[in-house]
Amino acid sequence: MALLHYPVINKHGDVIASAVTNLDLHDISRVAKTYGVKRFYVVTPLVDQQRITRRIISHWVTGGGAEYNPDRREALETIRLESSLNDVKDHILSREQQVPVTVVTGAGGDVNGGNPITFQALKERLSAKQPHLLIFGTAWGLSESLIKSANYRLEPITGVTEYNHLSVRSAAAIILDRLLQR
Amino acid sequence: MALLHYPVINKHGDVIASAVTNLDLHDISRVAKTYGVKRFYVVTPLVDQQRITRRIISHWVTGGGAEYNPDRREALETIRLESSLNDVKDHILSREQQVPVTVVTGAGGDVNGGNPITFQALKERLSAKQPHLLIFGTAWGLSESLIKSANYRLEPITGVTEYNHLSVRSAAAIILDRLLQR
Repeated sequence: MALLHYPVINKHGDVIASAVTNLDLHDISRVAKTYGVKRFYVVTPLVDQQRITRRIISHWVTGGGAEYNPDRREALETIRLESSLNDVKDHILSREQQVPVTVVTGAGGDVNGGNPITFQALKERLSAKQPHLLIFGTAWGLSESLIKSANYRLEPITGVTEYNHLSVRSAAAIILDRLLQR
Repeated sequence: MALLHYPVINKHGDVIASAVTNLDLHDISRVAKTYGVKRFYVVTPLVDQQRITRRIISHWVTGGGAEYNPDRREALETIRLESSLNDVKDHILSREQQVPVTVVTGAGGDVNGGNPITFQALKERLSAKQPHLLIFGTAWGLSESLIKSANYRLEPITGVTEYNHLSVRSAAAIILDRLLQR
């Protein structure tokens, strides 16, 4: 899975690069570890944000936090920092000898286009051998062009109300549970 | 649902009162709103923590944040601050004219005792008319005596690995989705 900080949109729909949020790294890496995700890519092209991200990870993986809380070390070890989605795909290709199938997530659904896939259909696909990359956006979500360039767009999470504004941390937890729970 | 900051345990198993985390209020209220939960009780006996909590809520419900992000206002409006679990039960009784059935959550499972219930069984119970109160702990989880005094203890979330350390934000998202998704 990958968490993108660029290209994402702000509340006005402009494409921006967002800041890295400390708790995204913690919460999503713990969910990734729980559901056996191979790697959690944190993607930002901004050098200062890469520096902050490295500092957080190293505190918990090799610094004072590793001894204080080994469970967090184990989770944050699954993180790999990359500058772009292409770098993520290259890394997966080098590891798996196959290009990953890309699946974007988001609350927007059909309004953003893309090639829709249901939870059930994706769940079935995941049992095949081909590597899949599940892509999450920060801020107000992934840019439209990124959504359209992915192989699939996962159907949005629907709760029981019209309200449709989960944090990316909550959405990632629910999506991995729906796709991967035994 | 209720998020308890007391009585919870620290990493050594001592009963403590934990600090309120800003993102717990945001993430969990948005999940609560998505899944149609009537009210999200934030429970702390500490006066300074109550003050911080009130300040966060009022910023987003009536202050500058309400106009900046109405979706957050709508979510944080579901929060009600209480000093103790008994106060929560009293409030529900006054609203619903019935004492709620209490269901504690946590990763511990059988080691903590309590009266276990599966997701499936709880899902069926929820369709009955009686009010249910789903209780989440912060820090290292709810105290043993609180777990034992509840009507039910919900089975722990199992992913696909042995790793079992989700944040309360992630756990709340997954549990509401499993219990309430259409």
